[in-house]
Amino acid sequence: MIHKTDALFSVDHSGIERLLEVDHRIADLRAVSGLLEWDQETYMPAGAVEARGEQLATLAGLSHHILTSKKTGNLLDALHKETKRGEFTIHDQALIRESSRAYDRSVKVPRKLVEELAKAASTGVECWRQARKKSKFSLFKNALAKIFELKLKEAECIGYNNPYDLFLDDHEPGLTTAKLNPIFAELKETTLQILERIRGSDRQIDQEILQREAHTEGLKEFSAKVLQAMGFDFNCGRLDSSTHPFSTGIHPTDTRITTHFNQQFFTSPVFSAIHEAGHALNEQGIDTRLQRTLLCRGASHGIHESQSRFWENYIGRSAPFWQNNFYRTLLDIFPGLLEYWEEQNFMLAINAVEPNLIRVNSDEITYNLHIILRFEIERDLFAGRLKIADLPEAWNAKIKEYLGLTVPDDARGVLQDIHWSSGGFGYFPTYSLGNLYAAQIYAAAKHDLDNFEERIKLGDMNFLREWLRESIHKHGKTYQADELIEMATGEGLNPAHFKNYIFEKFGQIYGF
Amino acid sequence: MIHKTDALFSVDHSGIERLLEVDHRIADLRAVSGLLEWDQETYMPAGAVEARGEQLATLAGLSHHILTSKKTGNLLDALHKETKRGEFTIHDQALIRESSRAYDRSVKVPRKLVEELAKAASTGVECWRQARKKSKFSLFKNALAKIFELKLKEAECIGYNNPYDLFLDDHEPGLTTAKLNPIFAELKETTLQILERIRGSDRQIDQEILQREAHTEGLKEFSAKVLQAMGFDFNCGRLDSSTHPFSTGIHPTDTRITTHFNQQFFTSPVFSAIHEAGHALNEQGIDTRLQRTLLCRGASHGIHESQSRFWENYIGRSAPFWQNNFYRTLLDIFPGLLEYWEEQNFMLAINAVEPNLIRVNSDEITYNLHIILRFEIERDLFAGRLKIADLPEAWNAKIKEYLGLTVPDDARGVLQDIHWSSGGFGYFPTYSLGNLYAAQIYAAAKHDLDNFEERIKLGDMNFLREWLRESIHKHGKTYQADELIEMATGEGLNPAHFKNYIFEKFGQIYGF
Repeated sequence: MIHKTDALFSVDHSGIERLLEVDHRIADLRAVSGLLEWDQETYMPAGAVEARGEQLATLAGLSHHILTSKKTGNLLDALHKETKRGEFTIHDQALIRESSRAYDRSVKVPRKLVEELAKAASTGVECWRQARKKSKFSLFKNALAKIFELKLKEAECIGYNNPYDLFLDDHEPGLTTAKLNPIFAELKETTLQILERIRGSDRQIDQEILQREAHTEGLKEFSAKVLQAMGFDFNCGRLDSSTHPFSTGIHPTDTRITTHFNQQFFTSPVFSAIHEAGHALNEQGIDTRLQRTLLCRGASHGIHESQSRFWENYIGRSAPFWQNNFYRTLLDIFPGLLEYWEEQNFMLAINAVEPNLIRVNSDEITYNLHIILRFEIERDLFAGRLKIADLPEAWNAKIKEYLGLTVPDDARGVLQDIHWSSGGFGYFPTYSLGNLYAAQIYAAAKHDLDNFEERIKLGDMNFLREWLRESIHKHGKTYQADELIEMATGEGLNPAHFKNYIFEKFGQIYGF
Repeated sequence: MIHKTDALFSVDHSGIERLLEVDHRIADLRAVSGLLEWDQETYMPAGAVEARGEQLATLAGLSHHILTSKKTGNLLDALHKETKRGEFTIHDQALIRESSRAYDRSVKVPRKLVEELAKAASTGVECWRQARKKSKFSLFKNALAKIFELKLKEAECIGYNNPYDLFLDDHEPGLTTAKLNPIFAELKETTLQILERIRGSDRQIDQEILQREAHTEGLKEFSAKVLQAMGFDFNCGRLDSSTHPFSTGIHPTDTRITTHFNQQFFTSPVFSAIHEAGHALNEQGIDTRLQRTLLCRGASHGIHESQSRFWENYIGRSAPFWQNNFYRTLLDIFPGLLEYWEEQNFMLAINAVEPNLIRVNSDEITYNLHIILRFEIERDLFAGRLKIADLPEAWNAKIKEYLGLTVPDDARGVLQDIHWSSGGFGYFPTYSLGNLYAAQIYAAAKHDLDNFEERIKLGDMNFLREWLRESIHKHGKTYQADELIEMATGEGLNPAHFKNYIFEKFGQIYGF
């Protein structure tokens, strides 16, 4: 129970009280939808796909109905007028801001379309799954066209000039194509620069270790140990297995992640678990007094992704993480597997740069090229310059151009990602934003925290989790991404940190 | 997709169409609540208890809100008037009947109370769990008093003379204390009669085998084989482990059961799995065209329970089930465990009659005494003749009187059942009704199906599942329990079948 005196909101204010009631209902429905989606990926019987789609559609429709009621609209209007008198707490203001944002976003979209979208998303995912299994884009084409058409309809209802900007904004408030173009142009240049240096290096890195199979039980044990050291709270979360790793923040006390233990290649399940645990720490770290409101989530997808990238790449692929510590644990759990390998070579293998057809298997450098090509494809789709039917061709051409690779089949090409199947356009760019934010946060953490590397070597990373909680997690969505990054690091988004980081790190690895 | 021409309902009738829309939403919300409850018992992190309570309360409140809207009331009124013209299908009529029943039941209860009840139920279960662990009724007393008070309030809102009748009716439409009194009086007499004969028998049955521990993997394998043979569809269902076995019918394509694999006593997890699978077959067997309506569930709790009892006791504890078949499978899976045991002795052990402090561990005879004592206690509580604080004393006295046993602690006494903790008063009597219905259905099945026992001996019981599906399952809640039992067996509830069955079966076992 939260006592009134501890509350972050003005719970004695009748308007705020009523807004919280609305928020509680909507947040509960979102939490429940989150659980349904988690269940669909983990334990749901295969035969229940259609029923699950109906349930998700009903929840989406109800949530929309509650949010867009005239009562809510009038309440928000009245509260807005009052904000000018300046008597609200920072959290009241954020609550009004986010609730209004959700209201404005929804009120123009009819409930029927919301339900259709939810249904199409749920069945779209299943259709994609089947098409991917058979590696045939043609099996997915119609479902994708359907969901694309519904998203266009949604954009029409809302009335944007550039529909893609609307969906960028859904994931990263305030983000537009115009803002992204120069950021991604610079990122592309940086990436191509460093790739050239790496190609010029004569250092050969043996990556064979990454392909070895490891027994599931060992992977589970090792992942659990790493999560424990990161401060993941197993009393308020779970780690399960699913085909595609993901994280679901149902509530700060119920945050679930998965990794692909069934895919027994050695390091991938572990790094995925660390990645998803980074997301989970963000959710578990939100001030519980924000629970059941629209503020009880990450500030933006970019910020959320920065947390997963931070742990996966900046900590999980760093020397202090493995030295004298988790490498030894690995040796204990997989004694035969690591025979003849040395820590130093292992470190090189997990950081090797090599273009890969698959985004999620890509290194820290080429990963961003995967994102940039997806951004360009999405942008062109919504601008009408590209047709759904021509996606495979466009995809394969860009993979050739940016990565120098030939796509052998759709499964390893245009069908590799789940996002579009549920209408998640505009999501991909936040992955690269996450990389940029993460580098900046990493620099700030190293600056703020004494003996940073020595403490990580000790194997207990709770000190770091606490710093992140105080700087980022606890605020939830109280601040917008740009405010938050400035509060946490002293400046707005600055891609130079990422550039410095990769040049330093990979300069050492490849000797340039 | 269901095509209009196949529909059971008059989907071209605008009133029916609108009623179906309401029903779909309510059924989806119930399905989702079912999943949340299943999750709470299986995979939910412990820390999420409070959040889960809030979510369930929100869903209950929304469901109530939709059901009791003026629009729904007017729609039902109009449809009622039209039923007199007699143009509706049997399913339309049932839909109107069940929707009206739900409407009438809910409209007098304020949403706030509904939400309070849902919240109190969810936290009540957790409180009971803690109290049971520590075996202290005093730790549960206040939570139980709270939920009892809320249930009384609910009854007051609805305005029943005898509040207990209201809750009986919730589980078994039309059931009253007055109807139950003579049925249970006769059942008590029959039970005491047969117990006296058993006590007079000089046959000693060795039950040691039931207490042996068996490895979880073997229990899982064996249970899965039995479920397969029963016709349980694993593509539309799951079998998991939980402390207390239960079944959740989320949808005909998503029916989940659990058993207590962690409690490694040999036969108990297996019989619990068969019992819950009996429930699951009922859910999986409902005509899919009834999906997402209030007709998509068992006709009553008594009928539902008859299906679990049928499979657990009438099939699972019968000689044909084990002979030449599942006993051999047992020997294969647990070779050491069954050493020196013979099939005949095993059959006697699993059917031995011996008063047990725990209801769920009780035999087919004394089980009903457990139910009768719970019925008497509930009846007296609601009549004001018994107080919550005096429950342990009343419980222990009745256990002494009916079973001749001394209750050593609350965990093995008044705290053993989960039902009251979530406000499930009036539920217990349906267990014994299930026993009576099951005997009657068993007699009808044996009459209808040629070579009944020979076919069961073959180990594939799909023929039986098909008969049950045609006679009972597929109808869902289209017919009331008394109509359905007459359709399936040719007569209304007739307890003589149970009496005949137990005298014949246990006469053979105990030689009287």
